Amino acid sequence: MKTYLDCFPCFLRQVVIALSQVPVDEALKVEILKETLEDVRGTDTSKTPAHTTTFIHRRIRRMLGRDPFKEIKHRYNHAALGLYPSLKSLVDDSRDPLWTASRLAIAGNVIDFGIYTEVDIEAEIDRSLKGEIVWDDYTDFRAALDRAGEVLYLVDNAGEIVFDRILIETLRDRGNKVVAVVKGGPVINDSTAEDALEVGLQQVCEVRDNGSDAIGTILEWCSEEFLALFRRSELVVSKGQGNFETLMNVDKDVFFLFQAKCNVVAGFLGVASGSMLLVDNRKLKGHDFPYTKTDSRIG
Amino acid sequence: MKTYLDCFPCFLRQVVIALSQVPVDEALKVEILKETLEDVRGTDTSKTPAHTTTFIHRRIRRMLGRDPFKEIKHRYNHAALGLYPSLKSLVDDSRDPLWTASRLAIAGNVIDFGIYTEVDIEAEIDRSLKGEIVWDDYTDFRAALDRAGEVLYLVDNAGEIVFDRILIETLRDRGNKVVAVVKGGPVINDSTAEDALEVGLQQVCEVRDNGSDAIGTILEWCSEEFLALFRRSELVVSKGQGNFETLMNVDKDVFFLFQAKCNVVAGFLGVASGSMLLVDNRKLKGHDFPYTKTDSRIG
Repeated sequence: MKTYLDCFPCFLRQVVIALSQVPVDEALKVEILKETLEDVRGTDTSKTPAHTTTFIHRRIRRMLGRDPFKEIKHRYNHAALGLYPSLKSLVDDSRDPLWTASRLAIAGNVIDFGIYTEVDIEAEIDRSLKGEIVWDDYTDFRAALDRAGEVLYLVDNAGEIVFDRILIETLRDRGNKVVAVVKGGPVINDSTAEDALEVGLQQVCEVRDNGSDAIGTILEWCSEEFLALFRRSELVVSKGQGNFETLMNVDKDVFFLFQAKCNVVAGFLGVASGSMLLVDNRKLKGHDFPYTKTDSRIG
Repeated sequence: MKTYLDCFPCFLRQVVIALSQVPVDEALKVEILKETLEDVRGTDTSKTPAHTTTFIHRRIRRMLGRDPFKEIKHRYNHAALGLYPSLKSLVDDSRDPLWTASRLAIAGNVIDFGIYTEVDIEAEIDRSLKGEIVWDDYTDFRAALDRAGEVLYLVDNAGEIVFDRILIETLRDRGNKVVAVVKGGPVINDSTAEDALEVGLQQVCEVRDNGSDAIGTILEWCSEEFLALFRRSELVVSKGQGNFETLMNVDKDVFFLFQAKCNVVAGFLGVASGSMLLVDNRKLKGHDFPYTKTDSRIG
């Protein structure tokens, strides 16, 4: 996906979110934000928004001398782990464990643990389990899993990775060999090897990293090892909007499980912002996605 | 009011909104947006957000070679004029015409004529007339008007200026001499002399301009003529958030009639975003407004 004009305010919103994680002086925050304007200016709109935000987050980490999301990720994982037993039972006791686990994995992407409001996660999940999957290629997803032996599973956020673990366990129990892929280095609240360890993912499947600290999966920046793995994989399960933005045009069998979290991606797909989606990559082909919506309200 | 970190994404959002008004090539829009990053970088956070947005909008007009809001302002005025007779009757037939006209003037600020949805303005007004004025210094407002002879009335947006006309007529009928003040040059959808003419404001009261194309009323950039008028005015009625941001610290009797349209101003005042407000400037003094809220949700 290319970068739209509407992505630019969101670039700065992401800077503000990153800086709000750390108790540093407001003046330093403003200085860092102003420096990131270099990355915003450097935006190549023919590339994905994830390209620019990757540069931005690198600069923020460099200038802060730390990963601003380290603590919150730990808290996300801990909160989600507390739900694991009940969610696991929910899946095991359901008529179609794959369906339930898939929905849960999408719900896990829906949950956007507000930093000061880690409350009512269960209610959020309950809502997500009842809510409509607006774009629902589940039947094709199940069929593709039945055909495939090995599945490459690209996880997304910390916390959410617990939900991924449950889906991966379900895939394993159905006979798929799963290789989970985390980020090669910290970037926003995305899962790294450390998060995988924290939620016990290594006990369930092989865990590899993509050799990159990019938002989503920007193949040109991934390691040779990951690219080899990616190329030979029969089926890719991809979590989160960042992976959708960066992999939607790839010529592979990919199923995207995510929530359209911004107006640009939602408008692009013709769905409401906040929609839960299970998208077969092959069904995107031939579609025309004329993104025209813009935020035109005047303050 | 100073500029907060949360204002920076909004600076770019305003650029996108301005550029969405004109049918020019996306590449040119991106070029203009990137040039405005210079203004964003130049932000002096000890000044109001209006300072930066003024620079931004000047650059946009210069690069476009036109005022991007010219057409929409004309449409706002036309739509609001269509409502004038019924709104005027509403005020005249009410038990307290000043109260009704004041609420209508705040409602006029609430109405944010979405560009593609100029529908249901009457329903919006009806809602606003029923909605709560969250910060309500109406009693003091009426008393101050009773004491004052001349009133300086700072109008805000096109369209909304029709609602201002009704309040100004009400003030006139109660015995106040009103001087209405418009912008000295086009900036966003703010009213200029042209808009005042379009809605017949000159038939109702004296209309002056402030000699400036700034958002709100940045006194350091206003004309000497306006400053003299401002200094000798007994009472100022100020419409809109921009005027609140730029005049809240002024040592005068000012009543602010507006809607808190952004999280920063709403958080600063401790009210919900979207709140309707009638604020006595004197009551702001001595208050502590520790703005701490920030948009900390992670996408």
